[in-house]
Amino acid sequence: MRIRLNKILRKGKAMYLAYDQGLEHGPESDFNDKNVDPNYIIDIAKKGKYTGVVFQKGIAEKYRQEIKKSKVPLIVKLNGKTNLFKGEPISRQLCTVKEAVKLGADAVGYTIYIGSDYEDEMLQEFSKIDREAGKAGLPTVVWIYPRGKSVKGKNKKELMAYAARTGLEIGADIIKIRYEGGIADLKWAVKSAGKTKVVVAGGVKKDEMELLKQVKEIVQAGCIGLAIGRNVWQHKNPLEITKKIKRIVWK
Amino acid sequence: MRIRLNKILRKGKAMYLAYDQGLEHGPESDFNDKNVDPNYIIDIAKKGKYTGVVFQKGIAEKYRQEIKKSKVPLIVKLNGKTNLFKGEPISRQLCTVKEAVKLGADAVGYTIYIGSDYEDEMLQEFSKIDREAGKAGLPTVVWIYPRGKSVKGKNKKELMAYAARTGLEIGADIIKIRYEGGIADLKWAVKSAGKTKVVVAGGVKKDEMELLKQVKEIVQAGCIGLAIGRNVWQHKNPLEITKKIKRIVWK
Amino acid sequence: MRIRLNKILRKGKAMYLAYDQGLEHGPESDFNDKNVDPNYIIDIAKKGKYTGVVFQKGIAEKYRQEIKKSKVPLIVKLNGKTNLFKGEPISRQLCTVKEAVKLGADAVGYTIYIGSDYEDEMLQEFSKIDREAGKAGLPTVVWIYPRGKSVKGKNKKELMAYAARTGLEIGADIIKIRYEGGIADLKWAVKSAGKTKVVVAGGVKKDEMELLKQVKEIVQAGCIGLAIGRNVWQHKNPLEITKKIKRIVWK
Amino acid sequence: MRIRLNKILRKGKAMYLAYDQGLEHGPESDFNDKNVDPNYIIDIAKKGKYTGVVFQKGIAEKYRQEIKKSKVPLIVKLNGKTNLFKGEPISRQLCTVKEAVKLGADAVGYTIYIGSDYEDEMLQEFSKIDREAGKAGLPTVVWIYPRGKSVKGKNKKELMAYAARTGLEIGADIIKIRYEGGIADLKWAVKSAGKTKVVVAGGVKKDEMELLKQVKEIVQAGCIGLAIGRNVWQHKNPLEITKKIKRIVWK
Amino acid sequence: MRIRLNKILRKGKAMYLAYDQGLEHGPESDFNDKNVDPNYIIDIAKKGKYTGVVFQKGIAEKYRQEIKKSKVPLIVKLNGKTNLFKGEPISRQLCTVKEAVKLGADAVGYTIYIGSDYEDEMLQEFSKIDREAGKAGLPTVVWIYPRGKSVKGKNKKELMAYAARTGLEIGADIIKIRYEGGIADLKWAVKSAGKTKVVVAGGVKKDEMELLKQVKEIVQAGCIGLAIGRNVWQHKNPLEITKKIKRIVWK
Repeated sequence: MRIRLNKILRKGKAMYLAYDQGLEHGPESDFNDKNVDPNYIIDIAKKGKYTGVVFQKGIAEKYRQEIKKSKVPLIVKLNGKTNLFKGEPISRQLCTVKEAVKLGADAVGYTIYIGSDYEDEMLQEFSKIDREAGKAGLPTVVWIYPRGKSVKGKNKKELMAYAARTGLEIGADIIKIRYEGGIADLKWAVKSAGKTKVVVAGGVKKDEMELLKQVKEIVQAGCIGLAIGRNVWQHKNPLEITKKIKRIVWK
Repeated sequence: MRIRLNKILRKGKAMYLAYDQGLEHGPESDFNDKNVDPNYIIDIAKKGKYTGVVFQKGIAEKYRQEIKKSKVPLIVKLNGKTNLFKGEPISRQLCTVKEAVKLGADAVGYTIYIGSDYEDEMLQEFSKIDREAGKAGLPTVVWIYPRGKSVKGKNKKELMAYAARTGLEIGADIIKIRYEGGIADLKWAVKSAGKTKVVVAGGVKKDEMELLKQVKEIVQAGCIGLAIGRNVWQHKNPLEITKKIKRIVWK
Repeated sequence: MRIRLNKILRKGKAMYLAYDQGLEHGPESDFNDKNVDPNYIIDIAKKGKYTGVVFQKGIAEKYRQEIKKSKVPLIVKLNGKTNLFKGEPISRQLCTVKEAVKLGADAVGYTIYIGSDYEDEMLQEFSKIDREAGKAGLPTVVWIYPRGKSVKGKNKKELMAYAARTGLEIGADIIKIRYEGGIADLKWAVKSAGKTKVVVAGGVKKDEMELLKQVKEIVQAGCIGLAIGRNVWQHKNPLEITKKIKRIVWK
Repeated sequence: MRIRLNKILRKGKAMYLAYDQGLEHGPESDFNDKNVDPNYIIDIAKKGKYTGVVFQKGIAEKYRQEIKKSKVPLIVKLNGKTNLFKGEPISRQLCTVKEAVKLGADAVGYTIYIGSDYEDEMLQEFSKIDREAGKAGLPTVVWIYPRGKSVKGKNKKELMAYAARTGLEIGADIIKIRYEGGIADLKWAVKSAGKTKVVVAGGVKKDEMELLKQVKEIVQAGCIGLAIGRNVWQHKNPLEITKKIKRIVWK
Repeated sequence: MRIRLNKILRKGKAMYLAYDQGLEHGPESDFNDKNVDPNYIIDIAKKGKYTGVVFQKGIAEKYRQEIKKSKVPLIVKLNGKTNLFKGEPISRQLCTVKEAVKLGADAVGYTIYIGSDYEDEMLQEFSKIDREAGKAGLPTVVWIYPRGKSVKGKNKKELMAYAARTGLEIGADIIKIRYEGGIADLKWAVKSAGKTKVVVAGGVKKDEMELLKQVKEIVQAGCIGLAIGRNVWQHKNPLEITKKIKRIVWK
């Protein structure tokens, strides 16, 4: 079936509101009394006209009506883990493509930690998801992060390009990578990704000036946009910062 | 299928009689000549009008007639382990959702040790159970306990909120957590759980005054109730303590 | 389907002739020129009117005609291992319930080493067997032995009760445990097993007086009988000792 | 289905030409310019009227016409490994029973290293093969070798009997063991194997006198014959040595 | 189904353009601004009339139209890994035979690291692929490389022959090995491979004279050709070097 990529793009650009931090980092590290509530996020996504909002299955299920009403495209993250376990990173599939479809997903997300002792298992698990998503016409958005003891001390810029390339080779439609190094490095990563589209992760909350400068570079490097979370929903005025970012992404 | 959550709630509140200690702790540590007998527990659950009684498959099977006659809603615990093995905690599925349905279950239970080396396997196994339970319309009650060498020395209040949030993210209908810290910490945990309901584990037998004080805090924090075992069936008068707790839970 | 437990009981009592030592211990340690031959065992089982004889699939297959002719109920042991591997004990399923049915089995046996690093895998594998046996109406007889480095130095009497309780919790119809401690300890184990019936393992060959004293205690403790091997087929007169034991078991 | 054992026996005796050394040992250690060619082996098997020739799936496939034309019964070895990996021995299934049937197999072979850390996995994998082979009416020929760090320093004669007994207990039709100790030890092993038939492995190339002496003992001990490889196809005149051995095996 | 080997041969000879380095080595180590683009490779393969071009599923998918138009036979590599993980090599299946067929593959590729701690898993995974490819009539091209701590310090010429033989034993149609030692060693490897055809890996970029000398030896040793990547697409004039190599391969 033809992949319906346009559902999560607008004029070929993308801006996703990421909200899987509750599982990945825990409420203590990232949330406050407002943003701990998924409805707060759905509201930002709706008013900010994001091209997608990223939830784990549990939230997609329990807040299904609210998500539906918001009309924001839904990206269901299919794997996840807490940050408690201190060994080599492994994040397993917790939601099937079929379940995601039932939950109204427009795309599915998956994280792969390349370099981890469990890289092979995540690559293989993703390959099954990609197969099923392809049959359902759903795009795959893949978080690719070099991680684990094998990558300690390696050149982060090279790893960024390697992550991007891995996305192309394994068949991801969109990959989400961390921005490392300068704009030339990111350009090389985008080039390495070939026809696979690239979005950059927002990462930890940063100074607004710095953030907006980064967004410009991201766009100049050829990325289609961002998958951003904390920099928006930890912001005192999420819609204001959203507007500023969008102005850059959509020129 | 619509989840029939009301079967294990009364006016939105819950009080479950937990009795999986035979497998989890062994008869020596928790049982006496009376409470070693499942019929003693069924009797308390019935007369105390509990909104659910928790059994492993074996007891649900062998005491099926007695449970049925008691009319207490049945929560079948789908995984379990002894406390003998000293390595990282792993508790695997020992009963299918289909078997639980045949045994007359109104809900299924599952334990996840987040932070364990095997967290990923339990999260994934639960995700399959959640899928099947959803199809059968059965609510999932998930025991979520931070455990294993990776969580040693971590802040217990933060872990409590993390456990609660994990329940929401993975799609649990009700989560059972241990009460750590004060009422403000528990409130934060309940908030982190969003639309997933929270019950608190009774834990080891404690002084009655202390227990009832805790129950009040649990209710004030926004939990729907308790899953209690030893504090009831190790009590010299289980129905008396039951009555006192119920008075607090149902105002 | 209703479990046909009566096929392997006589007036509610049981005496099984165990013969899985060829795989579990090797011919050198337990066999002589006579008892190395399965036909010798079938003959004792027949003439001694045992309520069951325990074989691995291979013997059940190759000596099928002889077993059938003997009319002794057949208990096929579904898992097994040699005693050569020195690591944590793990015994995997080598025969399916379906195969056992084809071989004419009246019950299926399975060993679980609680406390082993692989406890979880055996508990889970048994749970599948129990499910399938239940559908076929076959009783499950479960050898439950605390074993492995985690149980080193633990109180054996408590472990005996824990083993018995585990049998009840996981749905075994009959459990086979080792007799540790005194008659009061065994009574507690039997009580812990609830509606799951208990047989005691004969263990290594012992003095006849001691054996018969033990049999008396076993019966007094509430066990339904024994699963005995070496004390019978290593005996110079297996039928004579059989008769003496039976006199105690069936009053 | 009835096992067609006669296809790989002649008057109840057997002589198999083993040729899995290419995978198990590598060409360097065992082959020369002649015997590196599977056709050379097929030719010996044909002219020497062997009751079976043992190949891995790859050779059985690529030399199918030649094997068929030779009319030598085909035993397809279902598992295999190189000798490069230095850890605990594990040899996994590389060919299904169904594939073997398509390749025209008259029997299937499988190797189990008892005592290895992976003994449990090989025992279990064999149990599935045995099940499927049984349905297809194909005999199973099982190489059983005590191996791995757990068996270091153990009594080899006792291990030989243990290997033989294991074959009976797990349902092998024919087992192939190494000859250790004297004729009395081998007799005990054959007796331990009960109704399971025993063939002895030829092992490394040895002096002709010594080989023929061994063959005599093997026959006297009650084995049905040999599975021989290097002693034949490394011999300067394979058909001559074949003739000498056959004279002993078939009296 | 009959294996359609001729689709990836011309007059019995082969020259494959390998391009899985993006995943296996990363863009940093092997690519420049030109050859990072799959279209550059497709163009070389087309104009150079290669008998096959090797891609991972992702590239085969995203550049499907371009590949189709080029009419170069497509070999889809079914497994892969990054070079980041520093432990024992394991490369798992990321694309099914069915997917490869849909992508228009004329053959499927798979890498096996013999000697690795995971050799058994790759041998077994390949055996399933071989089965499915056989049903679809697709040839299997197997990269066989001795790798891992167990092969450290071993004789590379012997390992080359062992790799070749392994290919035959497991049923590969074509194997790709590294050229080690001299022409006599390669001849022995080709002989060890029997009816399985051998191509040699081009390896790291080398001096043109040296490369062409090697190609001559490869052909003289009886190989059917090469699977070459870096020596072509890192060359300043890929079509010129292609022409020179082809002249040798096709006499």
